[in-house]
Amino acid sequence: MNRRRFLLASGGLSLSRFAPQSPAQNPVQSSAANDITRRLAHFVVSASAADVPPAVRKEASRTLLNWVGCTLRGSREQAVDNAISALSPFSGPAQAGILGRKERLDILHAALVNGISSHVLDYDDTHAHNIIHPAGPVVSAILALSEHHPTSGADFVNALVLGVDVECRIGNSVYPKHYDVGWHITGTAGVFGAAAASGRLLGLSEQQMCWALGLAATQPVGLQEMFGSMTKSFHPGRAAQNGLTAALLAAKNFTSSEQGLEAKYGWTNVVSTAHNYDEILTGLGDRYEITKNTYKPFACGVVMHPTIDGCIQLRNEAKLTPDKIERVELKVHPLVMQLTSKKTPQTGLEGKFSIYHAASAALVEGAGGIDQFSDRAVRDSKIVSLRERVVTSIDTAVHEDQVRIRLIVKDGRQFEKFVEHAVGSLDHPMSDQDLEAKFSSLAAGVLSADRQRRLMDLCWNVANLPEASAIARAAV
Amino acid sequence: MNRRRFLLASGGLSLSRFAPQSPAQNPVQSSAANDITRRLAHFVVSASAADVPPAVRKEASRTLLNWVGCTLRGSREQAVDNAISALSPFSGPAQAGILGRKERLDILHAALVNGISSHVLDYDDTHAHNIIHPAGPVVSAILALSEHHPTSGADFVNALVLGVDVECRIGNSVYPKHYDVGWHITGTAGVFGAAAASGRLLGLSEQQMCWALGLAATQPVGLQEMFGSMTKSFHPGRAAQNGLTAALLAAKNFTSSEQGLEAKYGWTNVVSTAHNYDEILTGLGDRYEITKNTYKPFACGVVMHPTIDGCIQLRNEAKLTPDKIERVELKVHPLVMQLTSKKTPQTGLEGKFSIYHAASAALVEGAGGIDQFSDRAVRDSKIVSLRERVVTSIDTAVHEDQVRIRLIVKDGRQFEKFVEHAVGSLDHPMSDQDLEAKFSSLAAGVLSADRQRRLMDLCWNVANLPEASAIARAAV
Repeated sequence: MNRRRFLLASGGLSLSRFAPQSPAQNPVQSSAANDITRRLAHFVVSASAADVPPAVRKEASRTLLNWVGCTLRGSREQAVDNAISALSPFSGPAQAGILGRKERLDILHAALVNGISSHVLDYDDTHAHNIIHPAGPVVSAILALSEHHPTSGADFVNALVLGVDVECRIGNSVYPKHYDVGWHITGTAGVFGAAAASGRLLGLSEQQMCWALGLAATQPVGLQEMFGSMTKSFHPGRAAQNGLTAALLAAKNFTSSEQGLEAKYGWTNVVSTAHNYDEILTGLGDRYEITKNTYKPFACGVVMHPTIDGCIQLRNEAKLTPDKIERVELKVHPLVMQLTSKKTPQTGLEGKFSIYHAASAALVEGAGGIDQFSDRAVRDSKIVSLRERVVTSIDTAVHEDQVRIRLIVKDGRQFEKFVEHAVGSLDHPMSDQDLEAKFSSLAAGVLSADRQRRLMDLCWNVANLPEASAIARAAV
Repeated sequence: MNRRRFLLASGGLSLSRFAPQSPAQNPVQSSAANDITRRLAHFVVSASAADVPPAVRKEASRTLLNWVGCTLRGSREQAVDNAISALSPFSGPAQAGILGRKERLDILHAALVNGISSHVLDYDDTHAHNIIHPAGPVVSAILALSEHHPTSGADFVNALVLGVDVECRIGNSVYPKHYDVGWHITGTAGVFGAAAASGRLLGLSEQQMCWALGLAATQPVGLQEMFGSMTKSFHPGRAAQNGLTAALLAAKNFTSSEQGLEAKYGWTNVVSTAHNYDEILTGLGDRYEITKNTYKPFACGVVMHPTIDGCIQLRNEAKLTPDKIERVELKVHPLVMQLTSKKTPQTGLEGKFSIYHAASAALVEGAGGIDQFSDRAVRDSKIVSLRERVVTSIDTAVHEDQVRIRLIVKDGRQFEKFVEHAVGSLDHPMSDQDLEAKFSSLAAGVLSADRQRRLMDLCWNVANLPEASAIARAAV
């Protein structure tokens, strides 16, 4: 989605709020390029929980609910077993819960493991502009921290909103060039969100917050090459752990650069080929990046969602069995081929990086859930066979939440579908009911229906909880 | 030092050993660009301790001795106090010692803290070609691991040699472009050395070693912007911790890419603008990068050593008091101005990044030790005054271990000094006696003379120790 379109589509927020204002109106606006980190730190340590608008608080609850559901189910994956098996012999005191499991680890390891769980199904939230998965780094860090450092629900929500704002603004400042270099932006920008949110809860001074951002800057995690292996889900987990570590070190005056973002050899210059600092500073406290968060109806990267949405619609409309289909033609946004061009996936995990598999599975089974990205599905003979008849082409006129699909039937008929906004996108969002249904489908088999209901209510009501850690306690 | 000069100067090794051989002679030589990580992993898991030549084993002892001395003294620095204060509440069992201190932490935190201690004085070892500080990431990881996972001295030395080989070969493959991007190569390449050495001791399979290198690739640490703050020393410590984490995860089959180095969005392509894979694969098991390790006579980055060496020589020859000096002119390698151009350092730490301070302190006090890079020294009125009369210019004909100095005296006389190879360089190395003297100066006040002697003997004799962990136990 290009920037202009995005702004026009974001609803509720007028364009004028994004326009530069005079320094007198908004002191963080006029940006000499040597104080970007400090201005951002100033905002994070001084923004008040009371100033967060109700709609923003509500989106934070939706973000939290979606994160908890994904993390509960993700905790049953092999990657999480392996990580706990490898690292628990080195864990500190049993300070924080691992969602969906019995183990308790120190808060740093809990942040890592919950972050892995949250992302391992590729079912978590996605920022509509920069494709960061915002909750993974931020919530994984601060929920663990809240079990060690008493935190009210209101402070928790404020930290969550600020953390998402920081990681997404920094992400916006280098998107898409940073992504083109080969970085996985959820890990590389996410670490700032985790550091800012954790640091806010720890009560860092402005100076210490600068250091925390510097310590975050020096620990980016995540190469795109890791997609398709367990290491992809390691990225948000490690970003959470690194950001929390950064905040803890800064709280004890472990010094760092105060220009970690903007210096010549600072983060934006080292990890990207272009940057725009206005994205970081303009409208702080006025527009909130969490309002652009989206939640997946399908268990894979968001770039494949328009295709799955369109293929399910075509399946329901054309009522064809797969053997009748001669060819499936997809015209897609360039990022689809950059990220999901595996032609012959061998595992469910690899299937998440195959637009060919996603289209075929949606046409054969009419869904794009966890079951369609399982080892079973990628080996299903009908899906494999139809997959070989899916052809793709890049169309730069097609936006990231769009696709143009043509089904060519063996009898000569053709069906076409243009998906303008995939379900789950900012323009066609999941409703609260959709999110509850998704939560329940994820939590089934992990928590009883009663406990699911109680946990959903805690998430909706998080801003009023005396102790945010109640959510972690209810989810283990 | 340019590559050709380096090869000619490296002594002992004939040039022919660096030349490509046929695949039949050396199966790791012919390099399709899709198996770099696997070939390197194959070498690391199969190289035998018995094959390490005696001169290489000896260099490993020198590297270890120098690391232990630096770490003992570094453990008394504020950065280490702050790191322990921040993170010890989250440490696991008391598995491994912190050199020079009473605390014991889990092996992951011990690797981090010992790595910080080893580098915080900027007095540690330096690879003569790529300026990596090789021991920090590698020894910090495997010494901690050896306290948890029983390890013979012979295996420890083999892992140390292999770890240094891996990090320095990978560093060579992207040097100097990677450095020009703004990365601190000790952290970014060092993580591979820590992963390889730890993984070797853990007995990883070739497949698991590929994953360990992939997990290392996705966690580079270190922006040059952090130079001058405590975060610089965090880099080798975190590289040690990240590399050890990578090996532990891989040992439990936490999967990663098998092409973490060479893939389109793998490490070499993402963190550098150029690479040469021959540097990684050519002559594996034949030439060893640890033979190019050097040890600092001065307590700062190696790029300032020629200047300090030359200024001390001029001071002793010209016998001038600082007030007689009109001007000091330095013609230096470009990297000197990239890394150490702070004109008015305010702290001892900042002094390590000021060629102006280094030259002045050497002329005023005739030394370049820890005392000359203290807060006291950067505020000393004589040093500050002379510092303002130091002028620099870049001369691309001057190599990294050289400097051309001109002293202009107020009475009109001039003294010149061309340093061809600074003391401590590969062409003018520290002797074993020099290393022992440096060790004793560092360990003074931390260990008694008897314990210093015993610890030095353990380091010299490491290859024959039944348990390498004896070194850690003798150093706390």
